[in-house]
Amino acid sequence: MCEATAFLLKEKLEEKEESLIMNSVDKIEPEQGGIRLVNIFGEQKFIKGYIHSLSLVDHKIFLKLT
Amino acid sequence: MCEATAFLLKEKLEEKEESLIMNSVDKIEPEQGGIRLVNIFGEQKFIKGYIHSLSLVDHKIFLKLT
Repeated sequence: MCEATAFLLKEKLEEKEESLIMNSVDKIEPEQGGIRLVNIFGEQKFIKGYIHSLSLVDHKIFLKLT
Repeated sequence: MCEATAFLLKEKLEEKEESLIMNSVDKIEPEQGGIRLVNIFGEQKFIKGYIHSLSLVDHKIFLKLT
């Protein structure tokens, strides 16, 4: 399976902080005011943010708040 | 491996058009004015756009132009 882990990315000055949002993410779709994440178990999460970057071989998705 | 295929998404009225941008995408990073795609072979492509949505179990990334 090719699902990935979604992290919220916060950059403060020189520091980068990654906090876990959701495991086993399958789909991310835009929705009014943000994005909706759906994992392979059908669980959903809404985030007021956007997809910042991807590193798929590492199974990582980075999101940022708007 | 968990790379995906990147498609450019164009929506005109009720029609959806997907055109292939790059196969075997590993990383997508924001860059001034757009995003840079890098595939597992190290090939790169710059797109004046953003990541619209993901469907990772289908190995698909959808981009839109800005």
